[in-house]
Amino acid sequence: MSSILVLPGDGIGPEIVDEALRVLDAAKARFGLDIDLDHGLVGGAAYDAEGDPLPEGTLEKARAADAILFGSIGGPKWDTIERDKRPERGLLRLRSSLGLFANLRPAILFPQLAGASSLKPEVVSGLDILIVRELTGGIYFGQPRGIKEENGERVGFNTYVYSESEMKRIARVAFDLAMQRGKRVCSVDKANVLEVTELWKEVVTEEAKAYPEIELSHMYVDNAAMQLVRAPKNFDVIVTGNLFGDILSDEAAMLTGSIGMLPSASLDENRKGLYEPCHGSAPDIAGQGIANPLATIMSLAMLMRYSLQRGDVADAIEAAVEKVLDQGLRTADIHTEGTRKVSTGEMGAAVAEAL
Amino acid sequence: MSSILVLPGDGIGPEIVDEALRVLDAAKARFGLDIDLDHGLVGGAAYDAEGDPLPEGTLEKARAADAILFGSIGGPKWDTIERDKRPERGLLRLRSSLGLFANLRPAILFPQLAGASSLKPEVVSGLDILIVRELTGGIYFGQPRGIKEENGERVGFNTYVYSESEMKRIARVAFDLAMQRGKRVCSVDKANVLEVTELWKEVVTEEAKAYPEIELSHMYVDNAAMQLVRAPKNFDVIVTGNLFGDILSDEAAMLTGSIGMLPSASLDENRKGLYEPCHGSAPDIAGQGIANPLATIMSLAMLMRYSLQRGDVADAIEAAVEKVLDQGLRTADIHTEGTRKVSTGEMGAAVAEAL
Ligand SMILES: CC(C)[C@H](C(=O)O)[C@@H](O)C(=O)O
Ligand SMILES: CC(C)[C@H](C(=O)O)[C@@H](O)C(=O)O
Repeated sequence: MSSILVLPGDGIGPEIVDEALRVLDAAKARFGLDIDLDHGLVGGAAYDAEGDPLPEGTLEKARAADAILFGSIGGPKWDTIERDKRPERGLLRLRSSLGLFANLRPAILFPQLAGASSLKPEVVSGLDILIVRELTGGIYFGQPRGIKEENGERVGFNTYVYSESEMKRIARVAFDLAMQRGKRVCSVDKANVLEVTELWKEVVTEEAKAYPEIELSHMYVDNAAMQLVRAPKNFDVIVTGNLFGDILSDEAAMLTGSIGMLPSASLDENRKGLYEPCHGSAPDIAGQGIANPLATIMSLAMLMRYSLQRGDVADAIEAAVEKVLDQGLRTADIHTEGTRKVSTGEMGAAVAEAL
Repeated sequence: MSSILVLPGDGIGPEIVDEALRVLDAAKARFGLDIDLDHGLVGGAAYDAEGDPLPEGTLEKARAADAILFGSIGGPKWDTIERDKRPERGLLRLRSSLGLFANLRPAILFPQLAGASSLKPEVVSGLDILIVRELTGGIYFGQPRGIKEENGERVGFNTYVYSESEMKRIARVAFDLAMQRGKRVCSVDKANVLEVTELWKEVVTEEAKAYPEIELSHMYVDNAAMQLVRAPKNFDVIVTGNLFGDILSDEAAMLTGSIGMLPSASLDENRKGLYEPCHGSAPDIAGQGIANPLATIMSLAMLMRYSLQRGDVADAIEAAVEKVLDQGLRTADIHTEGTRKVSTGEMGAAVAEAL
């Protein structure tokens, strides 16, 4: 038996997670899966109920589970509360406490949605990039950090730091994943300016020696931001640190024009993982039943593939999503003329049905 | 009399700077400008001649000049030399020694070149963004930095630091420039994670109070990377720190599809400035006479506008560039069917002639 902890979070989180659970039920029925579901509070919802965006009880449940299905967090309601209690901090602490160091962010353009991209069709059609972002180190967690008084004025500071072992393990994840794909890895750094990324480049290069089949290249982050716009299909796997990964994975996601479609996985050393859509909590449309649940449903597919080792179930869920897209069903965010606009619930039901 | 120091640098630097000087001659003739030209070595060329990418003599000349016209630096030849002697370090030291804290990077799409963009025409046509990047602080120059040994392994580290006064002065530059444009400023930070940018957001907000006409907004850097792809025309002026500015300005430049066209200015408190094209030294095509000199020629226009206070000359140079584009002249990088492919020299001559 496998155990999944469900953390719906804030904004549209609860409604999109509900649809993923509907798809999970269909998967259980079809594949006879034995799964134990638990539920918990996180983000603003947890702050409201218990004064903490990551209550101890949620963290304990998360430690006990094999995988976590996560909705989304945050909203204007919690923008002005004390820094350490904000919803984002809960997510950052969860990633860090569970050692979820490997963030996998695919940027895939579904042929059915090619028109949604702001890029020319020939530049993005067939796009299939995987960004591997280090998630528990770098400037996100570096010490010292803060705001101090110096020479009569305030000074803000953060520390960008990586140890060799942190660099090695994320490089290996990228190489292992690339071996199952196009076998090309582009490591992104700013080695011409930042010593920490100079070491990054060196360590990644050393680590690549164990993967003779991998074609490794290096790119400065400013150039990577350009090349993603110019010719994104030239990339296969991109590996980079926490901050550059945050920026580039969002840029890459937007190339597809439909971030309501993109899932993500955050894995620890043993492939235990947290799965969440790439998009945010969209408080402006929460509760209206118009959010796109497909990114969360695809996150469930990743959960099956990586944490539950059920690639077959993952494939089936992804095929079901393709099928409803082929049927012309679209939520408002991806709706175009000639397709059928459906609600969050109708979309979830259609995928469950197709499965 | 005004004085300009010319630093051609490496790769295509010398040939594109030559064309800008040809245009300068034409401007002198037409407007009766009294300009004293000096020349100096920088980058790999300076390292080869004097063992230093920024020789003391060059720095002295730079201090004495009213403005600097800069080509480009770097190339594989110098990639493996000692870190502190690399061409880029010369440029970073030059920016820092002269206090060139305000980097202005316009991303403008010439209607004549709309087809060159990888984005759909309706998304980018008429694009006119100005990115104001802080250039002498932040993680580029923060201390401590380096690579150390800790617990038996190497650890790389850099420091992202900004003082209130650094933030204030770059914010004011952005607000002043926005007052002459669309009066909208978007400040980019990662305030939900990094304390230094939390302070940035606060200081920029305070500073805006002196500009009641300015519409100030804030955006996280990951979201900015997305919005530049989704709807770049929504931006007017973007203000941000050194590293985020490096990434976003290159991304924005590539939206136009023709970075061979984009100039930049780096200004000190008194509008003394260094002017350089946004593109690199392109060692692969150096010496072939096919490089596009227009970004350098447009950099000369910015030099006239900001450092020499000759907006009229700047306008005339920019109009001359538009005119040759209208005539259908194109260097190889922007050449398309139905236009005339010209060399670096022919392009420079045509602009000088049009002027
Ligand atoms: C919410 C925020 C802290 C987070 C991050 O920066 O990691 C988000 O942007 C993401 O990419 O998951
Ligand atoms: C060459 C490099 C050091 C430089 C930078 O990062 O500032 C360049 O990318 C730029 O943007 O001018």
